[in-house]
Amino acid sequence: MNFLPIQLFDSESSTYTYILAADGEAVLIDPVDKHCERDLAHLERLGLRLAYVLETHNHADHVTSAGRLRQLTGAKTAAPSGCGIAPAEVQLNHGDVLRFDASEEIHVIHTPGHTAGSVCYLWRGNLFSGDTLLIDGCGRTDFQSGSAEALYHSVTERLFTLPEPTMLWPAHDYKGRSVSTIGWEKRNNSRLSSRSLEDFVQLMNNLNLPPPRLMDVAVPANRNLGLPH
Amino acid sequence: MNFLPIQLFDSESSTYTYILAADGEAVLIDPVDKHCERDLAHLERLGLRLAYVLETHNHADHVTSAGRLRQLTGAKTAAPSGCGIAPAEVQLNHGDVLRFDASEEIHVIHTPGHTAGSVCYLWRGNLFSGDTLLIDGCGRTDFQSGSAEALYHSVTERLFTLPEPTMLWPAHDYKGRSVSTIGWEKRNNSRLSSRSLEDFVQLMNNLNLPPPRLMDVAVPANRNLGLPH
Ligand SMILES: [Fe+2]
Ligand SMILES: [Fe+2]
Repeated sequence: MNFLPIQLFDSESSTYTYILAADGEAVLIDPVDKHCERDLAHLERLGLRLAYVLETHNHADHVTSAGRLRQLTGAKTAAPSGCGIAPAEVQLNHGDVLRFDASEEIHVIHTPGHTAGSVCYLWRGNLFSGDTLLIDGCGRTDFQSGSAEALYHSVTERLFTLPEPTMLWPAHDYKGRSVSTIGWEKRNNSRLSSRSLEDFVQLMNNLNLPPPRLMDVAVPANRNLGLPH
Repeated sequence: MNFLPIQLFDSESSTYTYILAADGEAVLIDPVDKHCERDLAHLERLGLRLAYVLETHNHADHVTSAGRLRQLTGAKTAAPSGCGIAPAEVQLNHGDVLRFDASEEIHVIHTPGHTAGSVCYLWRGNLFSGDTLLIDGCGRTDFQSGSAEALYHSVTERLFTLPEPTMLWPAHDYKGRSVSTIGWEKRNNSRLSSRSLEDFVQLMNNLNLPPPRLMDVAVPANRNLGLPH
């Protein structure tokens, strides 16, 4: 009856967490530590058993609740194989299909660039793009194994080739925007829609952003699914 | 490809606005004046033409952008017939079905109580409940033709009788909750799940809430779809 993504927000880090709500089971993507109770309450109200907790990458701006959710619900944790999140029992590679509920399929698309291991998840025409492709933007590529060149190839070859009506659900937005489509980003994304690889790399390498405030805490914590390490 | 509700938030009044995204057309429910540009940008990114703007009732806590959206997009405005929103060209009654996109149907459920004219909208197993039924709560009934007795009947006879997995999308939440289900509310809503009519009426008539800050501005403005009057 449901089969829809539910978007939840963390106002401190401007992070979006997603519940993929199917019939009897759900999947969480990129849950944030301090919202663990909120997320569990949503699952309870929806009457859904948590099948998996997925990470799109190792986040530098917030700590995941994946490990705690696993402890509390028995859900499995799944992370991209290239992210060094060793305690996740499911290590995902490009082309993998993760199954939940009766016959739901989540397709794994490896999209290096924001980090070398970053992936996107595709479910029922909804792309959960992590920090790879943002609404009218993209993730930074200047730390944590980031590569502007790799991100350019990932977006133009693996995301902009998806059907245009594919809904784009990013891991962050800082301007009150919730959702976009592949078609719109392909035509209008101010960083990626009509820029050559060379221009893009130059742009990204000159952003001069400060490091994320929580990076030194978040990255090692997330490598352990947010559990004490 | 889409056919899903998108939930947008106004943090000032804690109001949820909904986009019902179908294939080529969309409907907006309870849009807020200051987010008009945000909402139009979403429609543009999704590549959807706005077919209707719906109000669940005459709001006392924010001003609608329905009139302005009609001017800017040519969408039709629709409001419950009992809400005194005369300039809305579609006046909705209990049992009406509003059609959009190729074959999408929105069912109108008259649920007096928060206001005498309040309605809920049902689309594809999603109930947009306005201020009638909130997550673990309900709308106040102490002004604007409100009636605790009517609200009790509306919720118990017209909403709690819907299929249990029906998703509940309220017009407000003040505690970071996004969505619930009819089943959960029927069993757990602290105001309505296991209270007699008499108890409920007594509870509601003793809440002693202050009037909404914007009431004297919002109610007359909303009667005119938010346009100057
Ligand atoms: Fe990130
Ligand atoms: Fe209201």
